[in-house]
Amino acid sequence: MLQLLVVGSVALDTVKTPFGEGHEVLGGSASYFSTAASYFAKVNLIAVVGEDFPESHLAFLRRREIDLAGLERRPGRTFRWRGEYSYQLNEAKTLETQLNVFETFRPQVPAAYRSPDLLFLANIDPELQHDVLRQVKRPRLVACDTMNFWIDGKRDALARLLKDVDVLIVNDGEARALGADPNLVKVARTIRAAGPKTLIIKRGEYGVLMFHHDRVFAAPAFPLEQVKDPTGAGDCFAGGFMGYLASTGNLGDEALCRAVVCGSVMASFAVEEFSLDRLRRLDYKEIEARFKEFKRLTFFEDI
Amino acid sequence: MLQLLVVGSVALDTVKTPFGEGHEVLGGSASYFSTAASYFAKVNLIAVVGEDFPESHLAFLRRREIDLAGLERRPGRTFRWRGEYSYQLNEAKTLETQLNVFETFRPQVPAAYRSPDLLFLANIDPELQHDVLRQVKRPRLVACDTMNFWIDGKRDALARLLKDVDVLIVNDGEARALGADPNLVKVARTIRAAGPKTLIIKRGEYGVLMFHHDRVFAAPAFPLEQVKDPTGAGDCFAGGFMGYLASTGNLGDEALCRAVVCGSVMASFAVEEFSLDRLRRLDYKEIEARFKEFKRLTFFEDI
Repeated sequence: MLQLLVVGSVALDTVKTPFGEGHEVLGGSASYFSTAASYFAKVNLIAVVGEDFPESHLAFLRRREIDLAGLERRPGRTFRWRGEYSYQLNEAKTLETQLNVFETFRPQVPAAYRSPDLLFLANIDPELQHDVLRQVKRPRLVACDTMNFWIDGKRDALARLLKDVDVLIVNDGEARALGADPNLVKVARTIRAAGPKTLIIKRGEYGVLMFHHDRVFAAPAFPLEQVKDPTGAGDCFAGGFMGYLASTGNLGDEALCRAVVCGSVMASFAVEEFSLDRLRRLDYKEIEARFKEFKRLTFFEDI
Repeated sequence: MLQLLVVGSVALDTVKTPFGEGHEVLGGSASYFSTAASYFAKVNLIAVVGEDFPESHLAFLRRREIDLAGLERRPGRTFRWRGEYSYQLNEAKTLETQLNVFETFRPQVPAAYRSPDLLFLANIDPELQHDVLRQVKRPRLVACDTMNFWIDGKRDALARLLKDVDVLIVNDGEARALGADPNLVKVARTIRAAGPKTLIIKRGEYGVLMFHHDRVFAAPAFPLEQVKDPTGAGDCFAGGFMGYLASTGNLGDEALCRAVVCGSVMASFAVEEFSLDRLRRLDYKEIEARFKEFKRLTFFEDI
């Protein structure tokens, strides 16, 4: 099994959707990513929390066998996010962001983590993402996420980072902002010319497109009757994607397609309940069963 | 080969998109449907045009071997629609609708058309759709389209029609309006309980979902670099879907999935150029090649 490292945020989220509310629940990109990935592989996590971070959340992550040697605990309060979704569930309305200890987070890669086979740079300042990449021996595969805040505000730093990244995983709005075009095929050409050989575009309830070599791969989202809380779906997707790759050690084209489906499977579970609640009581058999359902959802015979 | 009958509109469209303009080009649901279907099967068409309808358009439809015995020519002007798309290309802004001879259209099914194996009721007044259905021997498969105008304005007539329909083909906004819920899985349950065993939801650039028996089938839209004019994409989808079914005579579950892909193939060609221009110079080998590309777009191996 390959070594998988993630750098991102661990947060306390207060989330309201038409289907309920979660108060200071476990959130943050690295929490979602590593929990999803932990069903496939061992994960090393780099993030920061404050003194107030509940022991129960740490215990949960440890039970998932996530290595927390890189989780700094610093004086002050943990990163908090408060948001709300309407019935469309497409995009959160951010009501409040308290960066707290995250504001001065400068990720330090512990010695034991410096030769990852796979590295996921979750959505943080691209300068910090790049700094992490410089601290490690070049992994076999580097994937990263970003957001419009950095695309608009740190375009040059992001451009420098992208030159060193293999897989960019962003949502469609971010892809269009980065590629400066409404057409995703054109956007993919622009972005891939700027660095990442592989571009994965997340489209929420519409699934995922992966542009890779001369191929486009499309995976639908799993049609769910009840989506309670879409928070973290994208990071669970990335976790399933990278976790599956780490589990097999195969980074070939067909493996990437299967990894996209594993990512979609993990995202589909994540949104069924608040926070990581669905993943708390998930077992690998359910993952395999849903993978098969994705097959059934998309398979057709030749004409 | 099965007998395929369509009832709908033949129109002259004036369309503006960010990529060009078409002035009084061939349009209307029955034109798009029958042209797309004609690559797979013989089509009988019922519609109405005015005295001003250009002979060149009739010649084109005849070259596609579409039977025009049911195309009434009446005193007055042909149905005209004028619309515009923004860069998003998702939804047309209607600038003008001149119903003209379409206003008093009462479809009469010619004697030779009264035993269709497959019937497509394109988007017209649900009372007229139902009236057509009453004029024919019960086909093996009846599919219909509708729109928010009828969902809002003729809900009861539509509900009566749906009881007699096998396949409803609508876009996601229409499905949500009809099923009165934002969640498409719930919407599908509601709509299917009201009549159609099969529900196909078109989601534009995001592809198609088909709810059928205990299965959901998802087909992506083909990622295109250039979408010039999305007008008629939905009717070309329906044409490819029904045309394929007519060509094989197989209405089984797997055949329906292949038919959805054939529909998606035809829609993907249609939007590449204005009006039916791309379909004018399409050959069946290109359809087969794109079908294979859809396979490559969606295929993944088991884990």
